[in-house]
Amino acid sequence: MIDTIAFDGDDTLWHNESLFSMTQDRFRALLANHLADPADIDRRLLQAERENLRVYGYGIKGFVLSMIETAVDLTDGRIGGRDIQSLVEFGKAMLEHPVDLLDGVQEVVEGLAGRYRLLLVTKGDLFDQESKIARSGLAGRFDAIEIVSEKDPATYRRLLDRHGVDPARFVMVGNSVRSDILPVLAVGGHAVHVPYHVTWAHEVAEPPTENYRRIDSLHGLPPLLAAW
Amino acid sequence: MIDTIAFDGDDTLWHNESLFSMTQDRFRALLANHLADPADIDRRLLQAERENLRVYGYGIKGFVLSMIETAVDLTDGRIGGRDIQSLVEFGKAMLEHPVDLLDGVQEVVEGLAGRYRLLLVTKGDLFDQESKIARSGLAGRFDAIEIVSEKDPATYRRLLDRHGVDPARFVMVGNSVRSDILPVLAVGGHAVHVPYHVTWAHEVAEPPTENYRRIDSLHGLPPLLAAW
Repeated sequence: MIDTIAFDGDDTLWHNESLFSMTQDRFRALLANHLADPADIDRRLLQAERENLRVYGYGIKGFVLSMIETAVDLTDGRIGGRDIQSLVEFGKAMLEHPVDLLDGVQEVVEGLAGRYRLLLVTKGDLFDQESKIARSGLAGRFDAIEIVSEKDPATYRRLLDRHGVDPARFVMVGNSVRSDILPVLAVGGHAVHVPYHVTWAHEVAEPPTENYRRIDSLHGLPPLLAAW
Repeated sequence: MIDTIAFDGDDTLWHNESLFSMTQDRFRALLANHLADPADIDRRLLQAERENLRVYGYGIKGFVLSMIETAVDLTDGRIGGRDIQSLVEFGKAMLEHPVDLLDGVQEVVEGLAGRYRLLLVTKGDLFDQESKIARSGLAGRFDAIEIVSEKDPATYRRLLDRHGVDPARFVMVGNSVRSDILPVLAVGGHAVHVPYHVTWAHEVAEPPTENYRRIDSLHGLPPLLAAW
């Protein structure tokens, strides 16, 4: 029944949100000299990130610029140049961080390659995503790689058309209900949700009530496909 | 002979480098309180941009982060939070700046659409480029749009393969000798150089001695194609 499997990248194949989370911890520590309430820092940063999505799109560079803006704002401009440079360096460390594959990814992707058409459909910054895909060592396992700026039903419809994929024979595997599950169901495809242990607040969404499956790790995918 | 024409976007279809130039003027003015030598500012900024290409890739967000790094460095960390926020705002103004088409673009692209297969091959930030293409009003004129992170021979080879284009029947039209002319000639295609009045130092390259044509504006393209 299923002949094409698409995988999300960040937090599905490799760790990503944990890196943002760790950086946000460092951001809170850096602002601790100026401010007391960590919850306020998180709230203002998320607000800046959301407002800036419209101009920056997704990705680390926009995140760093949102941290800088939040730091200036929360300190009434008293943040020093050296602290700002630390934020810039946090961003570079994120961009250069080794790509850590999640548990089961290597075996499962290699096991499915050749038996199914495999796509990688990842959202975010073109340059950073290409770099991570190259460093993941998995690029050769995919029949096509698509880096998109947003994952909405129109994006999935365009990709399925481009690759001549029947939605009824297509399954998307990803960690984000908002980006990997709901829009795929909306265009008539199948979806498998593999939750990651941290979810960016912007990506949080209610899971649908039907037509999708949930597994704990990618190890659960082959048996699910076999049973379909 | 020619059946496929690819256009570069930035500084070929719409103004771009002039916007960076204008922002760099504002950057110099902002640092004037701290430093005297504008040539030193330009030199340090270009150095930061070049070093950071490896982690940031091309685009406005990376440029802003390089301005911030340069400002902290040149002022020995004395730059204030409000000035840093001004740099962030410069970047947002660039990202939201209206897309100004160059002279002749609208007529020439519309006149060639339907008679040739038209591609748009543009380099840089996925989100920003998609936004500019949408705002240019030209998206519907192109048979395919490709946003790439680097324009080297391997990139052009991949694109020609993907679209089943014979290099002998392909011409690339663009303002950058380094990105639009040399790599296209290297894969056996044709190239038309339309210089822009400002060229980013990183893109400066010696033009080849043969196998390419140079025109002053896109108005010169249809007669050139007719004579080919």
